[in-house]
Amino acid sequence: MDITARISVDGLGGDLAPQAVIDGVRRALERDDALEVLLTGPADALSPFAGPRLKVHATTEAITMGEHPVQAVRTRKDSSLVVAARLVKDGQADGFFSAGSTGACLAAGTLIVGRIPGVLRPAIAVVLPGKKPTVFLDTGANADVKPAYLFQYAQMGAAYARAILDLEAPRLALLNIGEEDSKGNKLAQEAFELMGDKLPDFIGNVEGRDLLAGVADVIVTDGFTGNVTLKTLEGSSSYILGALRDALMASTISKLGALALKRQLSGLKARLDPDTYGGAPLLGAAGLVCIGHGSSSAEAVCSGILVAAKAVRAGLVARIASQVSSSS
Amino acid sequence: MDITARISVDGLGGDLAPQAVIDGVRRALERDDALEVLLTGPADALSPFAGPRLKVHATTEAITMGEHPVQAVRTRKDSSLVVAARLVKDGQADGFFSAGSTGACLAAGTLIVGRIPGVLRPAIAVVLPGKKPTVFLDTGANADVKPAYLFQYAQMGAAYARAILDLEAPRLALLNIGEEDSKGNKLAQEAFELMGDKLPDFIGNVEGRDLLAGVADVIVTDGFTGNVTLKTLEGSSSYILGALRDALMASTISKLGALALKRQLSGLKARLDPDTYGGAPLLGAAGLVCIGHGSSSAEAVCSGILVAAKAVRAGLVARIASQVSSSS
Repeated sequence: MDITARISVDGLGGDLAPQAVIDGVRRALERDDALEVLLTGPADALSPFAGPRLKVHATTEAITMGEHPVQAVRTRKDSSLVVAARLVKDGQADGFFSAGSTGACLAAGTLIVGRIPGVLRPAIAVVLPGKKPTVFLDTGANADVKPAYLFQYAQMGAAYARAILDLEAPRLALLNIGEEDSKGNKLAQEAFELMGDKLPDFIGNVEGRDLLAGVADVIVTDGFTGNVTLKTLEGSSSYILGALRDALMASTISKLGALALKRQLSGLKARLDPDTYGGAPLLGAAGLVCIGHGSSSAEAVCSGILVAAKAVRAGLVARIASQVSSSS
Repeated sequence: MDITARISVDGLGGDLAPQAVIDGVRRALERDDALEVLLTGPADALSPFAGPRLKVHATTEAITMGEHPVQAVRTRKDSSLVVAARLVKDGQADGFFSAGSTGACLAAGTLIVGRIPGVLRPAIAVVLPGKKPTVFLDTGANADVKPAYLFQYAQMGAAYARAILDLEAPRLALLNIGEEDSKGNKLAQEAFELMGDKLPDFIGNVEGRDLLAGVADVIVTDGFTGNVTLKTLEGSSSYILGALRDALMASTISKLGALALKRQLSGLKARLDPDTYGGAPLLGAAGLVCIGHGSSSAEAVCSGILVAAKAVRAGLVARIASQVSSSS
């Protein structure tokens, strides 16, 4: 049997909360026998669902999408997000998951859970679908960075790939504008030097077209480029699938064709679906912090919680801490 | 009848040269009665195709993909690319098109054709397909930039959108990691201030997911982010269309479905096809410089030449010059 993993979950995180969160938590509990959830949020909405492996921590405040993240986390001390983070800080939970605003989750992660000593900047990692799953970071924790941050992102990304994708020696790459060593802006050129010197698994530069091609297991970039790129991928998938849907509905004969293709097309959609890895961890935080998409469905919430539990069991935080301390 | 446009074309530019170039030139001449082409390259391969509106300028050297761009342009003075650029500089051609290496075309554009006085840095602009065509720049001319460059990119992109998309007041936007005014790295924050203060058609920040959504007519970013983003779009389209093709071929019934959908699917593919706008101009150069994709087909070469001719007739270079001088 698996080791018990205790995950605190922000019951008010996300556009579809609390219903999608409650449904996601119940699915996760069904699929993982050794999971315990500490659900934070309003007692009246959540208490009916409490059970042996689902404890409810009643809170009285909510953080909304419009609020300034840092200020909200500092002042709303009895919000579902802040309490979920504090349960990790206090050792009552092994990790937390929220589908609330990324900025607020980031603030809760850095201000409440804190940073692993030696980590220069934490980074948000996602697993991209594609020919092979690829860990991609930073997708938005830090917009202005230094070469040494990118170097640590590669180390932290490697630890995550080992933990979550069960890879022994993940191939590490730098996102750049050409494959040659000398390509890129100053940041990329200096990061390339650092990584080439000190990371044995560094395979060099990759380009935007390689993100879904499975050519590397971990791809690092700054949080500005990473955020723009991730949203570009989301936008182009959704545009193309939308255009495909329109094409399929254009005539009677194409509707019949679409019917014949139903199974294949939903398989394709599932392969491109970010919900499969519904949570993005904040690597470098002193506890497991897992951030969901604001529009998370119940399935995405479930995936995010299961990803958090898997990372907890794999000792992700300790792995990152030892990686960072051994290289500094 | 249209005004005559004289375009010099690099007969050895691109992976499929000279055949794709020759075929592309002939198609362009068929479609545009007032077009004249000056084709540069080896006499034996090209001379058989000479005619009233297709002059061949024999050259003896070639620039290969592996050469250092600036050095190649400086030393190979009788290469098809350098001669095509010099024909513009000398006033014998109104613009040039090459599907050769982007680096070499960029070097030929800046070193031979030169920069419009007052332009801080030239930028490579592409027209993205999507819900509405959108001018996107810089896609790789300058990896390290300053806020003032981005401001000029917006002015130059607006001139291009007026010339090529026939828009009167193109909506200008900054690619960023959030829609709020205060978002982004230092570069984006400072560029946002500049653009908001001085550009009446500036509509603010857009995100990666907006690139194909038609929410702005011109979107600017630095050449590092722009290049990564453009290649990400190319990579994701090709990945999704490939996965779709695999799904369609998976079984007899899905093959039948695919047959019923043939027309719709090829329409979708054409909509996503970068060949439609086969050329990317180097905005800010003192003559019309149009760069094609290295893997340009005859159709892409034809589109690139027609785009160059349209930009020449619209007086793009003069428009950019007056825009830049009036704001400095």
